[in-house]
Amino acid sequence: MKPDELDVADYMRRLGRQARAASRQMARASTRDKNAALLAMAAAIREQRATLLAANARDLEQARADGLDAAMIDRLTLSEKGVGSMAQGLEQVAALADPVGEVSDMKRQPSGIHVGRMRVPLGVIGIIYEARPNVTADAAALCLKSGNAAILRGGKEAINSNQAIAGCVRAGLVSAGLPETAVQVVETTDRAAVGTLITMPEYVDVIVPRGGKGLIERISNEARVPVIKHLDGICHVYIDDQADHVKAIRIADNAKTQRYGTCNTMETLIVHASIAARVLPRLAAIYVNKGVELRGDEAARKLIPSMTAATEEDWRTEYLAPILAVRTVESLDAAIEHINTYSSQHTDAIITENYTKAMRFLREVDSSSVMVNVSTRFADGFEYGLGAEIGISTDKIHARGPVGLEGLTSQKWIVLGDGEIRR
Amino acid sequence: MKPDELDVADYMRRLGRQARAASRQMARASTRDKNAALLAMAAAIREQRATLLAANARDLEQARADGLDAAMIDRLTLSEKGVGSMAQGLEQVAALADPVGEVSDMKRQPSGIHVGRMRVPLGVIGIIYEARPNVTADAAALCLKSGNAAILRGGKEAINSNQAIAGCVRAGLVSAGLPETAVQVVETTDRAAVGTLITMPEYVDVIVPRGGKGLIERISNEARVPVIKHLDGICHVYIDDQADHVKAIRIADNAKTQRYGTCNTMETLIVHASIAARVLPRLAAIYVNKGVELRGDEAARKLIPSMTAATEEDWRTEYLAPILAVRTVESLDAAIEHINTYSSQHTDAIITENYTKAMRFLREVDSSSVMVNVSTRFADGFEYGLGAEIGISTDKIHARGPVGLEGLTSQKWIVLGDGEIRR
Repeated sequence: MKPDELDVADYMRRLGRQARAASRQMARASTRDKNAALLAMAAAIREQRATLLAANARDLEQARADGLDAAMIDRLTLSEKGVGSMAQGLEQVAALADPVGEVSDMKRQPSGIHVGRMRVPLGVIGIIYEARPNVTADAAALCLKSGNAAILRGGKEAINSNQAIAGCVRAGLVSAGLPETAVQVVETTDRAAVGTLITMPEYVDVIVPRGGKGLIERISNEARVPVIKHLDGICHVYIDDQADHVKAIRIADNAKTQRYGTCNTMETLIVHASIAARVLPRLAAIYVNKGVELRGDEAARKLIPSMTAATEEDWRTEYLAPILAVRTVESLDAAIEHINTYSSQHTDAIITENYTKAMRFLREVDSSSVMVNVSTRFADGFEYGLGAEIGISTDKIHARGPVGLEGLTSQKWIVLGDGEIRR
Repeated sequence: MKPDELDVADYMRRLGRQARAASRQMARASTRDKNAALLAMAAAIREQRATLLAANARDLEQARADGLDAAMIDRLTLSEKGVGSMAQGLEQVAALADPVGEVSDMKRQPSGIHVGRMRVPLGVIGIIYEARPNVTADAAALCLKSGNAAILRGGKEAINSNQAIAGCVRAGLVSAGLPETAVQVVETTDRAAVGTLITMPEYVDVIVPRGGKGLIERISNEARVPVIKHLDGICHVYIDDQADHVKAIRIADNAKTQRYGTCNTMETLIVHASIAARVLPRLAAIYVNKGVELRGDEAARKLIPSMTAATEEDWRTEYLAPILAVRTVESLDAAIEHINTYSSQHTDAIITENYTKAMRFLREVDSSSVMVNVSTRFADGFEYGLGAEIGISTDKIHARGPVGLEGLTSQKWIVLGDGEIRR
């Protein structure tokens, strides 16, 4: 029975029921079985390479026929190397420590009871993503390793690729004796599927949307289930008047130019007015040489006359492109004020040798990652030692910043006693 | 300008803007200033005892005129002793460690950067509660100590009491040099105020509803902000066939009869069939002696013929009364299955001397507190060493089980470097 022959909501609810049932088995699954499934998935992906590439070719053909733009085609494309990376990614997740069952903070209370916490899966995770087919394998791996069941809803452009990958994922689950409904890839491209997925709290515990701001805002507005959101990354580097010039220039260069399209790329450079004359011309030369367009405030433009004038809109923009807004300030307070006003609370860095200013910046900047003397480009699950990353949360509740396996778990309280009663 | 002269939504948005501004100051406030404010609030409450009691008398008079039931009047009543307890509660929160600024898990990564986490306030917390006026002081204290701003919306029955307490809270804030808008008590009794409070994510970061299931479900359905939910407590004690009889009887007695109306009271007793003949008659004698009505399944009724027959509905009911459902099972698996089906995921306990069964119960029961050989009545912030409690969360996301100061905070990532860049 194909999903399009069914009412989509009924179909999604069936997936939900199956996921809920599978999640109970997954919560109990041994680390050995979960790792065996991940390794079997990796093996299946390597074996099925030709099938995966053929499925992807069908998606690409359709995409070209539909006139999708080059960036979209690029994200959709699965190369031979991409298939290998996908398999490697699964093997890397198998090598990570199992977060489930970790017991912490076990303390004896005055009543005699021991109270602590045990890490447990969240239950069922719904992942909604766009064109990249490799997300299907990545997300499946992270949900599985953290003892959750997953319902994956990829972009309709990647439907053939995703279904082919789903086959490998199922094969891995079955070979390890785990329920094949532990990871379900939605088979319908009907948009109503998303509407149902995000409004069935009885079957889904959390939604992780991966994609553009539009997708995430729409899902957040309509969801009846908690959403781990990743909105935009308007990241700042503030060069303090007591910055080391060498570190300042190296970091401000790297934070902007190492990659333009990533969420942890600097979008606004803030420079203390009293150091601007010494660092801005050298930085401007580097940026201009690399083709970065500069948009500055008045004081910055006095130093670099080739800059265009920045508008209020520039402070609020995630360019994801070789464009940089430049602002000068008279004090650390003004820098923090600018950041807490315009930052998307993703990642912000200060460059300073002054201890007290570094501590103030760490405490007072209200972003998910706050850094001293380091490039914002380090805001990343791998660089933070999480081993893998399902996304970067700009929320405050539950998970903040890069979300790894731990972000897909929760902690319950455990209490060990010897017959104690309340008096 | 009185709120009822304004459009309620405008009024609430003004409170929201003020709270957001105050929250930035509160996040930076020193522990010394926060404690000074708490102690000044306590002093003000003691000094204003007569005023508070008079305000409460006006609420009680109105409540009687409106024909409110005895339980409601009881919750609404503020006694001389109650005023003292409220002041003591504030002093106890002042004595707790400040959670804000705690740095943990600071580890060096292969790139050379140090990555760790710093505990930070959530921002603005909206608390919606019913008749008990002491919640005004309790909630204000917890939000303040955790560096948050708060908007408190109490029940309309308690409006005079709450405003009088709010005066003491403001006096404490002002005397410590903190913004008086850090804790705002909503002055209108218009129900539309709640609708606005829970749908302005730009000003409010999390909602904590404290009250009956109806209130919490309504708020969860309509909120556009994360909600820390406390739904019902359908708690279980499972007496395993390898239980110590003395512990089993002591705990099953205490878990049901120490208090009937609390959320951590046992509502269903599960007994392994092979031990039932030895423990159930002794327990039944205790329960019947204390006036507890027993409703059992067939096997239990064979042992205790005076029991009425339990229906499916009984397994799903939070009695909050001297009524107990009794179920017999043939195995630990059946007990866990029953609990994971009918429990409200609040608190469940096993009584057993068997190590492996205790470990399985801890791992496999999916509740916010899971206990071995202890009365469920221990599920409580004070008993867990949290020092105070804003509620007990039955959610999985963010906070689970008793929520203390830590549950009103989040963690951001902090990264310390020495000029490192991404390659």
